[in-house]
Amino acid sequence: MHIRKQRLLTPGPTPLLPRALHAMMASDIHHRTQDFIKLYPQVLADLKEVYGTQGDVLITVSSGTGALEASISNFFSEGDTIVICSAGKFGERWVDLAKAYRLNAVVLTAPYGAVVAPERVEQALRENPAAKGVAFQASETSTGAAHDVQAIAEITKKTGALCIVDAITGLGTMKLDIDGWGLDIVVGGSQKAFMIPPGLAFVSVSEKAWAQNAGAKLPRLYFDLKREKKMADKGESAWTPNVSLILALAESLKYIKSLGMDKLIENAQLLALGTRSAVTALGLELFAPHSPSSSVTAVKAPQGMDSGEIVKGFRNHFGSIIANGQGTMKGQIFRIAHLGYFDFADLFAVIAELELILHSKGIPVEFGKGVAAVQKVYAEAAFKPASV
Amino acid sequence: MHIRKQRLLTPGPTPLLPRALHAMMASDIHHRTQDFIKLYPQVLADLKEVYGTQGDVLITVSSGTGALEASISNFFSEGDTIVICSAGKFGERWVDLAKAYRLNAVVLTAPYGAVVAPERVEQALRENPAAKGVAFQASETSTGAAHDVQAIAEITKKTGALCIVDAITGLGTMKLDIDGWGLDIVVGGSQKAFMIPPGLAFVSVSEKAWAQNAGAKLPRLYFDLKREKKMADKGESAWTPNVSLILALAESLKYIKSLGMDKLIENAQLLALGTRSAVTALGLELFAPHSPSSSVTAVKAPQGMDSGEIVKGFRNHFGSIIANGQGTMKGQIFRIAHLGYFDFADLFAVIAELELILHSKGIPVEFGKGVAAVQKVYAEAAFKPASV
Repeated sequence: MHIRKQRLLTPGPTPLLPRALHAMMASDIHHRTQDFIKLYPQVLADLKEVYGTQGDVLITVSSGTGALEASISNFFSEGDTIVICSAGKFGERWVDLAKAYRLNAVVLTAPYGAVVAPERVEQALRENPAAKGVAFQASETSTGAAHDVQAIAEITKKTGALCIVDAITGLGTMKLDIDGWGLDIVVGGSQKAFMIPPGLAFVSVSEKAWAQNAGAKLPRLYFDLKREKKMADKGESAWTPNVSLILALAESLKYIKSLGMDKLIENAQLLALGTRSAVTALGLELFAPHSPSSSVTAVKAPQGMDSGEIVKGFRNHFGSIIANGQGTMKGQIFRIAHLGYFDFADLFAVIAELELILHSKGIPVEFGKGVAAVQKVYAEAAFKPASV
Repeated sequence: MHIRKQRLLTPGPTPLLPRALHAMMASDIHHRTQDFIKLYPQVLADLKEVYGTQGDVLITVSSGTGALEASISNFFSEGDTIVICSAGKFGERWVDLAKAYRLNAVVLTAPYGAVVAPERVEQALRENPAAKGVAFQASETSTGAAHDVQAIAEITKKTGALCIVDAITGLGTMKLDIDGWGLDIVVGGSQKAFMIPPGLAFVSVSEKAWAQNAGAKLPRLYFDLKREKKMADKGESAWTPNVSLILALAESLKYIKSLGMDKLIENAQLLALGTRSAVTALGLELFAPHSPSSSVTAVKAPQGMDSGEIVKGFRNHFGSIIANGQGTMKGQIFRIAHLGYFDFADLFAVIAELELILHSKGIPVEFGKGVAAVQKVYAEAAFKPASV
């Protein structure tokens, strides 16, 4: 009816960094010329700095799932045992991958909204001493719950197994001390906290992982990380790179470096805290109250209401695109994202919109109450030292 | 400290329509080829439709001031009498133009924040029966006050004078019935409700104005509207056009047509109403309470505070760029814009930010109170028919 700017507020794709978007226009360069060979090593170096590891970080031209597949196909042989923590739709993807590649998967499940306790991983590794890997999500995007990455990593580190982390929505929203904690493989995606469109994925590989790679017999070609590393060392990519996204990534990495990765994480954590505070003030329930991630907050729809009505309300009334639940959670929850290029102004608006949507559905709401909860979080964080 | 998206929330330049911005990338066409000659007549036709006139609407490659100058140089001769309503910095610009072109200016001034009453125009025209024009601002951007365009036009229509309207921030924020009310010259600018960057201005010209143009002897070349019209009738522009902005304008006009000009105006009016309601709820005073425009709301800084501190607070804490006062109003007022590509989500955030800035300055604020006032305006407008 009136102006409704379309705002992409989902946990991936996330809002685009304008300067990264504009940089994509410079794509008329050839990837086997000096133009690209000047650009690519800098991008890889910045990516390593943002990951915060001394190990390798490689880029695949794929969605995140491609890099998850690379994390299996490069480090295992048929019949190898892998321990999988499955606490949501993305945990189930590890299970699908293990099945597709004929691994022996020891699956530790947690109900949607909960996570797998580190003690269960410890026990599984004790019972399966030949396990070659432990795979899990740092942040399970489908439920808004976060695993205790450090604890799982420290348990895994003492064994021969690789610690394989789907950090696609974990990077930039939680501390991940890759080298200190011993995270052997950490997967990221361009359309998450990296603030650019989908199409690139990232994989860090530790020394321990490279050692296991040497004996890994699963078939691979496009996602052969050894080949990718050899080319990366020469400043190139193994296959034709997505040049427009590499240009965008160069800009977004510069931005993240200037902001500081710790500040990017704190930003997501504050927005998540504000969101939890706001929805609770509005009488709504969190879907993952005990181990909430800071990448996305999953909120239960009010009793008797399909969460799709709230998602639709956001789109139809305000042009705001937020996420419904996935799989069996569809209709039960809606999800407000915090990862990447989100700021408090986004959140003030989202919560004001949520209040209006609840009101329009006949749910009693005190206008401004949720917004005030977010404002309190902002004031605490931003004004405390300078406040009157 | 954290992510602060830069948001341009000034009364021009205004927020850019993304699809118009993206269209600028197609600028590699030549303006004397079919590529452009297919584009330009459609843009002129759409511009006429959006202006809502059967008369001519021409484009100048200039800022709005260039088109104001064209409104003088094309329709007057040295020594001609012009009545000017001056109620702010832009009223003073009419006076400067009249002086530069050696017209006999009868200047009716109103204090900043007020406007010139139509009766004073009537009297001035009675006292100056040879007057060839009445020039004024539809919306005086510097003060946030709006003239009664219809009343002034109806008075002017009965005389030989042209009704010359600076509608640079009036177009798209208030009803302007160009043909019905007899607005002879109506000036607009690209970076206002047209949602694209600065660089183009627009002038509508009535039959009465063309008749006066025939005898107007002031010197002109670049801004010769007769020449511009001749070329426009052939589908071209007189001089080299700003092709990137014409491409952007083509998109923004399509968007405005799809939204409806009446809805664009209503959008600005609702946002202005919400803003007035919010700042009043927060105990602040309006600068133009009696004749507020819907293009921009000027708000007095709290007693004893420089409004620049509020403007700085918006920028430093939130990345939001809002306008200070101009000239002697600098430090006294700050201005929140509504014209063009603004929506309620913008306003929810701006008001939440204002509350936090006031709080940070030690002014007692109930968080969410101003936002709630905006939400009430939204709910009234959007939910009334469908609400429970």
